[in-house]
Amino acid sequence: MTHRNSLPQGIEPNMISFSLGHPDRTSFPFADLETATMAAFKSQALAMFEYGPQQGEKRLITRIVDHLNRAEDLNLKYENLMILSGSTHGVDMVCRLFVGAGGGILLEAPTYKDTIHIFRDHGSKLHPVPMDEKGIILEAMTDIVERLSSEGNSPKLFYTIPNFQNPTGRTTTKDRREEILDLARRYDFIVLEDDVYRDIAFEGDLPPSYFALADGHGVLRIGSFSKTLAPGLRLGWLIGEPEVIDTCMNCGTTQMGGGANPFVSSILAQYLGSDKWEKNISRLRENYRNRRDIALSALERFMPTGVHWTVPSGGIFLWLTLPPSVSVYELQAASRPKGVVFSAGPGFYVDPDDGKFNLRLAYSFVAPDELEEGIRLLAETVEELSR
Amino acid sequence: MTHRNSLPQGIEPNMISFSLGHPDRTSFPFADLETATMAAFKSQALAMFEYGPQQGEKRLITRIVDHLNRAEDLNLKYENLMILSGSTHGVDMVCRLFVGAGGGILLEAPTYKDTIHIFRDHGSKLHPVPMDEKGIILEAMTDIVERLSSEGNSPKLFYTIPNFQNPTGRTTTKDRREEILDLARRYDFIVLEDDVYRDIAFEGDLPPSYFALADGHGVLRIGSFSKTLAPGLRLGWLIGEPEVIDTCMNCGTTQMGGGANPFVSSILAQYLGSDKWEKNISRLRENYRNRRDIALSALERFMPTGVHWTVPSGGIFLWLTLPPSVSVYELQAASRPKGVVFSAGPGFYVDPDDGKFNLRLAYSFVAPDELEEGIRLLAETVEELSR
Repeated sequence: MTHRNSLPQGIEPNMISFSLGHPDRTSFPFADLETATMAAFKSQALAMFEYGPQQGEKRLITRIVDHLNRAEDLNLKYENLMILSGSTHGVDMVCRLFVGAGGGILLEAPTYKDTIHIFRDHGSKLHPVPMDEKGIILEAMTDIVERLSSEGNSPKLFYTIPNFQNPTGRTTTKDRREEILDLARRYDFIVLEDDVYRDIAFEGDLPPSYFALADGHGVLRIGSFSKTLAPGLRLGWLIGEPEVIDTCMNCGTTQMGGGANPFVSSILAQYLGSDKWEKNISRLRENYRNRRDIALSALERFMPTGVHWTVPSGGIFLWLTLPPSVSVYELQAASRPKGVVFSAGPGFYVDPDDGKFNLRLAYSFVAPDELEEGIRLLAETVEELSR
Repeated sequence: MTHRNSLPQGIEPNMISFSLGHPDRTSFPFADLETATMAAFKSQALAMFEYGPQQGEKRLITRIVDHLNRAEDLNLKYENLMILSGSTHGVDMVCRLFVGAGGGILLEAPTYKDTIHIFRDHGSKLHPVPMDEKGIILEAMTDIVERLSSEGNSPKLFYTIPNFQNPTGRTTTKDRREEILDLARRYDFIVLEDDVYRDIAFEGDLPPSYFALADGHGVLRIGSFSKTLAPGLRLGWLIGEPEVIDTCMNCGTTQMGGGANPFVSSILAQYLGSDKWEKNISRLRENYRNRRDIALSALERFMPTGVHWTVPSGGIFLWLTLPPSVSVYELQAASRPKGVVFSAGPGFYVDPDDGKFNLRLAYSFVAPDELEEGIRLLAETVEELSR
């Protein structure tokens, strides 16, 4: 196997890149997936080549349902899950079918920048709600929902990344989730939880998902193989009540395109027939926990006083707050010549005036030996700019 | 290789099914694609597993551009083409980015039912325009466009299937294309040509595409591997002016998901490195021409007077018109117990009151020996209902 010449979009050569939430390039189980591919060609080539069932490859659905029921003690049934072409497909489809142009969406401030972009492409109205370390601030959310409701513009959806949030690394507490669900029920908006980092947990118990807490009512949950296996496969899943899954199966894109990629789905169904995925997840947890620890200890060692950061208990992101004397744009301009890039805070906010003293560090893609050096260089730059 | 137990959505066991525009199940080049897959694992596994470039896999883009330039004497450049996750992805994205909710779309009456569904999901306004054997009727289109324009609701897009149209099998003439382009320029709407059947041409020359006639200005063109290779791969392409392709590359879904499936794209790039695709297309042309000929001669032999049909010079669809005494719903109800299913006309119209005396026969999926028998049974049923 040789590496291809051209790097994926967004990866800059010869830079220490904290910008991208990409998996560790050395983590992909090439041999296991090659074996699964060969087996799929042998046993189910026709299913790989034809249009697939609209809900997705049947064995793949069954195996993901089994995995989730086992891992979280859930009671999911076959009709609760639909295969997606990655979480992108889910976010886009849910917005198209359940929100639409002009429909209101509540979201965490800050949140994942590309979903802001998707919601904007649909012409939906965005209502950011500030967060604290426990998740979205309930009082702020209640105020916004009450105001919108009194104006006759009740929001249709709350988009959340409940575990190891992108970009902050924060996990919403169980109490907060329950309070939000209560508000969602009272004001009749859907909770869409984008839960792609759940399996990358380092320590402690995760709160039950919104889906579990609500027994599925009014909640849609997205999962993905991009963070726990390989993003190039472009496969994920959507969990919801059967009638909601039905709506998604009967929408125009699903009717036209058939189920999510049948070729790759057949291969993944084969791969999931063993415990290889679980083992891969265990390896990734160790891998990313090690990187987080290196990043945290480098931050503690090198960062000047006045810089603060979150301490994620899983996932791939850290969120830094700079002292008021150093804007993130200054830091970006000054650290790039030193070979370090990262994502500036404002991109994660609906209002780009927010986040000017924040940055996101993704530690999954940076090799362990570069993590410390990258953070040292960043710290040095902050200090230079503070003088 | 064994066939999987469960049939793809929409396929009914033990029925002669004229319903589905699915490829012949025996036509897939299993061995060649398995070879390409193995080679991709050897030479570019990393590219298969990571997020891909937003425009799509670079070698795949180059090879499709080369194929199109060679086949049609075009002058496409690399920046004119973006890889899609099937034509569905293209139709949905173009509607999202360039039309949106409330935006007007002109379309052929009848047209492909699932695109009607996608446009409706976006809340776009649909303006069907009647066709004759040469394509959409220009006078009718002009009247509609002028009326909409005078109301301040100029349409944003014309969606057309120019070659071997779904469902009629008709090909829009060159003159008609030029007249429509002239109208599009005057009233500033985009022409979206869904050209997935182009390569399945049996005889005669095809008119140049809208894209070629307009030198790309104001035209977007969709192509797909679903009809010429295998729908389960879920890959196609979008051709447009570089700035339009740029807009698509920079939209939310492309930013979030990366390029169209990198895993399958790498395999296809490998497969397209030889002349196997062209050879597969040649075989499919022979295969489907033979089926069309069987279908046409069975129609001539068995159908009672008063039934009319189109004579497609390519593609996979025939369009029948029944005598006014036999509605398609009656025919559907009476032919199902005999083991024959097809698609009723109204599904292909925006207004389901249209097409009540029409049906679409897809001849690609029905085995040659069943084609004649299926049409004989249909003809017998029409005769029984006409009495």
